[in-house]
Amino acid sequence: MQSVGQNARVAARQMARATCGDKNAALRAIAARLESSLTILREANAKDLSAGRDSGLDAALLDRLELSEAGIAAMADGCRQVAALADPIGEVTDLSYRPSGIQVGKMRVPLGVIGIIYESRPNVTVDAAILCLKSGNATILRGGSEAIHSNMAIAKCIAQGLNDVGLPSDAVQVIETTDRDAVGQLISMPEFVDVIVPRGGKSLIERISRDATVPVIKHLDGICHVYIDKDADLEKAFAIALNSKTHRYGVCNAMETLLVHVSVANDILPRLCVAYIEKGVALRGCEQTCALVEMQAATDEDWDTEYLAPILAIRVVSDFAQAVAHIDAHGSAHTESIVTENYTTGRQFIAEVDSSSVMVNASTRFADGFEYGLGAEIGISTDKLHARGPVGLAGLTSQKYVVYGDGHIRT
Amino acid sequence: MQSVGQNARVAARQMARATCGDKNAALRAIAARLESSLTILREANAKDLSAGRDSGLDAALLDRLELSEAGIAAMADGCRQVAALADPIGEVTDLSYRPSGIQVGKMRVPLGVIGIIYESRPNVTVDAAILCLKSGNATILRGGSEAIHSNMAIAKCIAQGLNDVGLPSDAVQVIETTDRDAVGQLISMPEFVDVIVPRGGKSLIERISRDATVPVIKHLDGICHVYIDKDADLEKAFAIALNSKTHRYGVCNAMETLLVHVSVANDILPRLCVAYIEKGVALRGCEQTCALVEMQAATDEDWDTEYLAPILAIRVVSDFAQAVAHIDAHGSAHTESIVTENYTTGRQFIAEVDSSSVMVNASTRFADGFEYGLGAEIGISTDKLHARGPVGLAGLTSQKYVVYGDGHIRT
Repeated sequence: MQSVGQNARVAARQMARATCGDKNAALRAIAARLESSLTILREANAKDLSAGRDSGLDAALLDRLELSEAGIAAMADGCRQVAALADPIGEVTDLSYRPSGIQVGKMRVPLGVIGIIYESRPNVTVDAAILCLKSGNATILRGGSEAIHSNMAIAKCIAQGLNDVGLPSDAVQVIETTDRDAVGQLISMPEFVDVIVPRGGKSLIERISRDATVPVIKHLDGICHVYIDKDADLEKAFAIALNSKTHRYGVCNAMETLLVHVSVANDILPRLCVAYIEKGVALRGCEQTCALVEMQAATDEDWDTEYLAPILAIRVVSDFAQAVAHIDAHGSAHTESIVTENYTTGRQFIAEVDSSSVMVNASTRFADGFEYGLGAEIGISTDKLHARGPVGLAGLTSQKYVVYGDGHIRT
Repeated sequence: MQSVGQNARVAARQMARATCGDKNAALRAIAARLESSLTILREANAKDLSAGRDSGLDAALLDRLELSEAGIAAMADGCRQVAALADPIGEVTDLSYRPSGIQVGKMRVPLGVIGIIYESRPNVTVDAAILCLKSGNATILRGGSEAIHSNMAIAKCIAQGLNDVGLPSDAVQVIETTDRDAVGQLISMPEFVDVIVPRGGKSLIERISRDATVPVIKHLDGICHVYIDKDADLEKAFAIALNSKTHRYGVCNAMETLLVHVSVANDILPRLCVAYIEKGVALRGCEQTCALVEMQAATDEDWDTEYLAPILAIRVVSDFAQAVAHIDAHGSAHTESIVTENYTTGRQFIAEVDSSSVMVNASTRFADGFEYGLGAEIGISTDKLHARGPVGLAGLTSQKYVVYGDGHIRT
């Protein structure tokens, strides 16, 4: 791992100096290599699938592991899409003259070496590598052992693509060993690795955050809330509450708890619950909710649970303050939305709720790098330092100060 | 420490919601309390000074410990200056419509609870507290044991000032115990503390960075370079090289190594060295430098040393690439400056040197929050994540996404 780290550090210097044109050429070359390696990739993937079946992986995991022909085409498309994004590196902002006469601004630069630790989906190998490449970083990738053959075959395509355009193949290194110690080493080499981005379940991320001595961009749980205010337009409320829960279930930006102001509960909850039940959503309500609509009573645990499933907790609140207090106490600071037509209440919600995304009259499902116009997403950060919320290319960069003078000295 | 953390967390919520007017009123009230407590502050400080003398603190440390009448007036002035700065909280940037119809932007919000660990200067208690206050954060301060009486007396003024305007006094807590365990606890309570800012010597910062489980905004060493290029205007080079070293010695943005292109070494080094020697700077040169001017030979160690003293290492380089390679190998990524009239060389230096401040034709001494127009400075970060370079109020904040819709759902 030491030599992997050293090689990454050397490659990172070269990548930081690569031009936008070089990086885009590499992305297109990687796309071409993936497309021309279809058979090799499918064969490697077949080994993983066969080993997975033998070791008893369930159908959902096998499905995530599979590299279909369409999946490989999608990876190649992904490379071309990232090539089409604006290059974040070198962007200078806030350049202005100071009273001393110097001109000061900020320039966007790569972070350096990014370690990515992820689970079974082999397409993450390409997705993560190309975002790091476009942002001028070197990457060290550590995928799940169940995808090792697929990942190594993808790694070869990436290395070839980099070589094709004269960029260092060490700019993207996929760790060949499935040894668990490799992760421990990767997250404790601050001299070679600038940041770790774990992608996977909560337990993986918690373990890495706890043990890492390298900074980690974390993505923990999304216990997201919609609050239907007393001044809500109930048609908007109906649509947003339904969409936030039922558009997709297994995603971090799905609503897990619905809060409803007592004065509109009777008008909105009965018909909303009918719609949820039609969609197959299991409901768990507070006492007041259960008095309006028959459903299972919610326990204390429900308010703190990220279901990632067609289950919804519903609570009637007496006022705005109780809604915000509930979110403070039980939310995970991921995404919260209020439905209201009241100007002051909307502003207050935006100001007071401390989540990575705070919304007025919009579905929580919009909390996403593509929907926000970042062009790409390496994850959604639940940290407050550095990147918060959806992380795109800019989240993989830093800003340095640039100073232009004309012989200026400090007096 | 647990209860200190809990109280800080509660206060942080209130501070995040405090208006700009409330925070400014608190800053002015603290200023007034400091001024009206002159005698009490001087008495408390006298206890520390007396204990310091008894325990054999050296003159420099005693000097840093002293709270003079002018020093107290300066602290009060500092409060009023921070009150006059723009409030960073609530600033919304990049608000734009997306194809889906939602409007997305970023809003600046406080980090939450900031832990500050610092050494003997009691004025840091006020400086750090008021920057955190203005940026809507709660603070836990842990000063040096030698300043405990001074710090507690200052803490009382701050608490009174907060009370005067109805803000929670727990928004600024100064730890009363001088127990070393308190630091260990403070840096390992991520549930209560969002970031640690250590202010002090390198060993303090290294120890805290190593042991902390809370993120740390670090300020390690400043081994800063000036590179005099072959196309330098030698008058500018003379002024910048002299100013970067001799304006102040014990500061992190002072030049420690001077690099000179071989083709101008003979024209600039002899007269520059005369000027350094006149100022009392001890010189250590590479072989080529020693051949031009008689001086002590530099050892390998010199290139990696932050002198913080009137000592300068000088190296003659054969070209631009060697200068940048030297900086890569020996610099601390703090501040580097090139002196050149060449357009391409200047651009290349800005692009290729990976330091928190990179300059063309300006003294390294400009790397400073006040000089950069931040209005204040809590430190200079040598990290790449979150804040890099001089850290002002914005460095003590985060940005959350705000989304405005009109009943928008994702389809």
